[in-house]
Amino acid sequence: MYLEDIPLEDALARFWTALERADALTPLTGEELAIPEALGRVTAEAVFARVSVPHYHASAMDGIAVRAEETLGASESSPLQLQVGSQAIWVDTGDPLPPDTNAVIMAEQVQDLGTGQLEILASVAPWQHVRPMGEDLVATELVLPENRVLSAVDLGALVAAGHTRVSVRRRPTVAILPTGSELVEGGDQTPLKPGAIVDFNSVVLAGQVSEWGGTPTRLPITPDNRTLIRERVAAALGQYDVVLVIAGSSAGSEDFTAGIVRELGELLVHGVAIRPGHPLILGVAQDKALIGIPGYPVSAILTSELFLKPLLYRLQGLPPPSRPRTNATITRKLLSPMGEEEYVRVKLGQVGQRLMAAPLSRGAGVIMSMVRADGLARIPRFSEGVHAGATVEVELLRSMDEVARTVVAIGSHDFALDLLSNALARRSPGASLASANVGSLGGLLALARGEAHLAGSHLLDEQTGEYNVSYINRHLADQKVVLVHLAGRVQGLIVPHGNPKGLSTLTDLARNDILFVNRQRGSGTRVLLDYELKKLGLEPRHVRGYEREEYTHLAVAADVASGAADTGLGILAAARALDLEFVPLFNEQYQLVIPCAHYEAPILAPLLEILRGSEFKAQVDALGGYDVTDMGRVVWQS
Amino acid sequence: MYLEDIPLEDALARFWTALERADALTPLTGEELAIPEALGRVTAEAVFARVSVPHYHASAMDGIAVRAEETLGASESSPLQLQVGSQAIWVDTGDPLPPDTNAVIMAEQVQDLGTGQLEILASVAPWQHVRPMGEDLVATELVLPENRVLSAVDLGALVAAGHTRVSVRRRPTVAILPTGSELVEGGDQTPLKPGAIVDFNSVVLAGQVSEWGGTPTRLPITPDNRTLIRERVAAALGQYDVVLVIAGSSAGSEDFTAGIVRELGELLVHGVAIRPGHPLILGVAQDKALIGIPGYPVSAILTSELFLKPLLYRLQGLPPPSRPRTNATITRKLLSPMGEEEYVRVKLGQVGQRLMAAPLSRGAGVIMSMVRADGLARIPRFSEGVHAGATVEVELLRSMDEVARTVVAIGSHDFALDLLSNALARRSPGASLASANVGSLGGLLALARGEAHLAGSHLLDEQTGEYNVSYINRHLADQKVVLVHLAGRVQGLIVPHGNPKGLSTLTDLARNDILFVNRQRGSGTRVLLDYELKKLGLEPRHVRGYEREEYTHLAVAADVASGAADTGLGILAAARALDLEFVPLFNEQYQLVIPCAHYEAPILAPLLEILRGSEFKAQVDALGGYDVTDMGRVVWQS
Repeated sequence: MYLEDIPLEDALARFWTALERADALTPLTGEELAIPEALGRVTAEAVFARVSVPHYHASAMDGIAVRAEETLGASESSPLQLQVGSQAIWVDTGDPLPPDTNAVIMAEQVQDLGTGQLEILASVAPWQHVRPMGEDLVATELVLPENRVLSAVDLGALVAAGHTRVSVRRRPTVAILPTGSELVEGGDQTPLKPGAIVDFNSVVLAGQVSEWGGTPTRLPITPDNRTLIRERVAAALGQYDVVLVIAGSSAGSEDFTAGIVRELGELLVHGVAIRPGHPLILGVAQDKALIGIPGYPVSAILTSELFLKPLLYRLQGLPPPSRPRTNATITRKLLSPMGEEEYVRVKLGQVGQRLMAAPLSRGAGVIMSMVRADGLARIPRFSEGVHAGATVEVELLRSMDEVARTVVAIGSHDFALDLLSNALARRSPGASLASANVGSLGGLLALARGEAHLAGSHLLDEQTGEYNVSYINRHLADQKVVLVHLAGRVQGLIVPHGNPKGLSTLTDLARNDILFVNRQRGSGTRVLLDYELKKLGLEPRHVRGYEREEYTHLAVAADVASGAADTGLGILAAARALDLEFVPLFNEQYQLVIPCAHYEAPILAPLLEILRGSEFKAQVDALGGYDVTDMGRVVWQS
Repeated sequence: MYLEDIPLEDALARFWTALERADALTPLTGEELAIPEALGRVTAEAVFARVSVPHYHASAMDGIAVRAEETLGASESSPLQLQVGSQAIWVDTGDPLPPDTNAVIMAEQVQDLGTGQLEILASVAPWQHVRPMGEDLVATELVLPENRVLSAVDLGALVAAGHTRVSVRRRPTVAILPTGSELVEGGDQTPLKPGAIVDFNSVVLAGQVSEWGGTPTRLPITPDNRTLIRERVAAALGQYDVVLVIAGSSAGSEDFTAGIVRELGELLVHGVAIRPGHPLILGVAQDKALIGIPGYPVSAILTSELFLKPLLYRLQGLPPPSRPRTNATITRKLLSPMGEEEYVRVKLGQVGQRLMAAPLSRGAGVIMSMVRADGLARIPRFSEGVHAGATVEVELLRSMDEVARTVVAIGSHDFALDLLSNALARRSPGASLASANVGSLGGLLALARGEAHLAGSHLLDEQTGEYNVSYINRHLADQKVVLVHLAGRVQGLIVPHGNPKGLSTLTDLARNDILFVNRQRGSGTRVLLDYELKKLGLEPRHVRGYEREEYTHLAVAADVASGAADTGLGILAAARALDLEFVPLFNEQYQLVIPCAHYEAPILAPLLEILRGSEFKAQVDALGGYDVTDMGRVVWQS
């Protein structure tokens, strides 16, 4: 078995052709629903008016019904008199026009003389203030065509037209079979065993099916047992309109899906030249679409977008909706593998006048890259990639309104930023703070490139003992910048539960029985470590493991948890995340670097208010490990 | 009682201020749902990761786990050997990385020498082909903030982060009380009595509430009984978050709503300077929003858009979504009443290079104007209106994609056009034919102004006996035009059931006992009548009722049905619509006038194909009263 590399368009063409041949693309038949239940559904046939609306000539005002000819010449200065009963009949709005009348005079322009006579202060033209029969709808007229998505207004028109029920297309049914012996149901194991993976792909796919108008059914998680998978696929083909098999779509020894598709029907495509999403299987069996969805979550999401979404829309008689697109400036060089079309998730930021697209993680396994993405940039098959600063076309996953209200933070990560993000979403519905974690120095460089509104940073100057200022002077020399204090933060040694080696100071790192794990150069924590070692007169070569570098606080904690290292320098939150212990050592300053232009712009105003209010301070204080005294204070500006 | 005229912004400001004071704007509390059920709901609190994803260092490939340091220098030309077990361990994708390894070499680059030794053809860097612990999510990290609408992808992230349930905002509950003694439930009376009106407003409002995330409850139709209405409003205030009372919001004798609002709470606004929608009531009672919605359907729809929609979004912690806007050229002069902001429904048409906005009916009672509308053009309060050809800003109700696929037909109406509209929606999902009925001549003038792709026309030249050509030459002299035959169509006398006066020819119109009803000048039917009367040597003054003009086939039929006239000239469909009889007299030619530029454009291709296929011909033929022989044939071009 091997994977093909079929271009996307060819794969789609093969798929549609085979499904058309199998008559598996015809819009589904209708089911009758009471009209109030049909909101959002698609008409299965044209609907014609059973009655006219109004079904009689109706008065459009409270007043008197008259013959227009008999009102000629009436005005405020020369009123006319009409006989009640024979020439004028009182009507309310909506009343049928009495026989032989053809217009209505508003009550405000009528004076009752009390003698069976009325005085009118205005003339009317024929049919004035009358809603003529059929003004809105004429019986037998088309109200709504086939294949119309029913809005609230449409439902009203159907009821007005004399209908009580409407025939709408059956929702396409989709079976979703998650396969893999490593899968467990969410919540089944606590804690999860190493190698066990929670099945969340089936939840995402089911959600997508619902979003696209279908009815999903999640079949039980099925281990890598060829016979069992085959049995369940065959059964599903008998019951559902479309069958999805998750995972087993690659070319490994336990990738059974392609073989099963071939046995049960026709294997159309095995491997599409897209990334993520390459190991995709398209087939048709029992005149149904049978799709093998790759197991990596981003691959699953994208391939279902590309193949399942248009299929479900076609089965409902609808064109697949296209997402709005926009141009944006890519912030980083992207190399792309020749021969594969790549979908890069990007975070968009309206930073000043420019719309910046910052690429998110390209890993097919990183579902948060889809959660955080504002759009998808497509790098064509025969492109080698794009250069930083190039204009790319972005398919929008969120509205530009939302994008415009997103504060983009790139830099060092801190848990308080997560809290801040939530406080902002809570205080200003629709606003959000999106943060990308690239370390302190990475954040300053992002600001230099105009990618972000602010950067979290805790870079210690070894000469001055001051935080951030000298780094800003070096890397952001040509920008006016404000430095806002977020919090003092404790750094310390992350140690196993019970601190078995009894570590208490940095000097302990020089002990022979201690294996340390370090952070990468350029990270604030590494700068801090080097500074403190120097102060103690300890040389790096005396610290065993000094040369082993990790890129995040959590990776350091993970090494301690697995026993790969005895300790590392990091923050309390990382220790907590893995249920480890923490030996507090140093206070450092975690600050926000904000270019003046953004500092003064409305987009940051709510955020700065939050930082300066007491509620948020109390929240961060309650976390432990923070000094919030100076939160929100401007500590320096260039 | 009288109606105020409060500007929209002031009305909104009063409403929000009073609701804030009553604490009736705070986002609703949460309810816990199983994650797969939470699609589209709004998070009520921030969600943090319970576990890291992956929760262990995982192999990202099928291959061997190694220590990167021990692979240095390996290549295809100089492979290295590793010992299975101590230096290399076989792993599958997703397997935990064995202790003391830090990279994976793909299976494709490994050769099993079969002696417990492996040969590797490539070196790897540390952590290559490894998904490090926490790559996707770090335990304790923010997954989603408060006030986030949950997408399918979000659900997956929540499950991945170790959650099985999620707290989402309760949906706001909305009670809808339709009032009015004239109201009947849809389907209750057949046929409807004159003056009876089917309550469809409550169906529309319920649909809107659902579209905006709320849970609607339609209370029973309540007659104009002040005590009963008051009782039901008071009861609803105790049970729902928001209460809507439909109708009774004006200033007539049976308009009770304002008084009831004042008794039960505070009346904030009675009358807003908008049109449609003026007689709106805003109040607050028992710390709930209490809204009196006007009874005309378009007024109801627009006022709920303006006041209820933002309220429901705020209660869910969301900003009200704003609709996209576009500029378009208005096709007709619009006079607007000074002092009222007007919302004009428009049909958009991409006619050649220009986006044209044709105003639809401005009647507040015409729900079909909302069904047909592509957008709303706002005429500001202190404007007198706009001139034809002026640029107006249009708030889009449909996507520009849909607009671009809409064929705009303006002219004489025929039932076959309705069928054609449906055939198009059926054949090309997403495409549509929108037709406005302004009579044949009106259609030609619309083409002259560039408002439409085609016009249905049946204008007989009295001199030549030929259809449409001389009119086209006169009114569309500067355009190249194609004339496409739709159908021969029978015109005849519409008479009451049983044809009591025994009418059989046009000569009968001269009888003394016959009262005729005519069509307006410029209509094709009027031209036909005059032509045929002249042929018979009958003078108009011999036809009693000749001077009484109606504007549609149906209005003529309605006069016959009500006994206001004995007969009129019209088409079979109009007679059928009102269950009348029909005496066929003449065949006329109903044709489509199409400017060449559109005739040759892709937008009309599917429509022309339908006209030339046998299926649609058979459908129209089956209606009766049509000759479909030449359907689709080009009969003339300029």
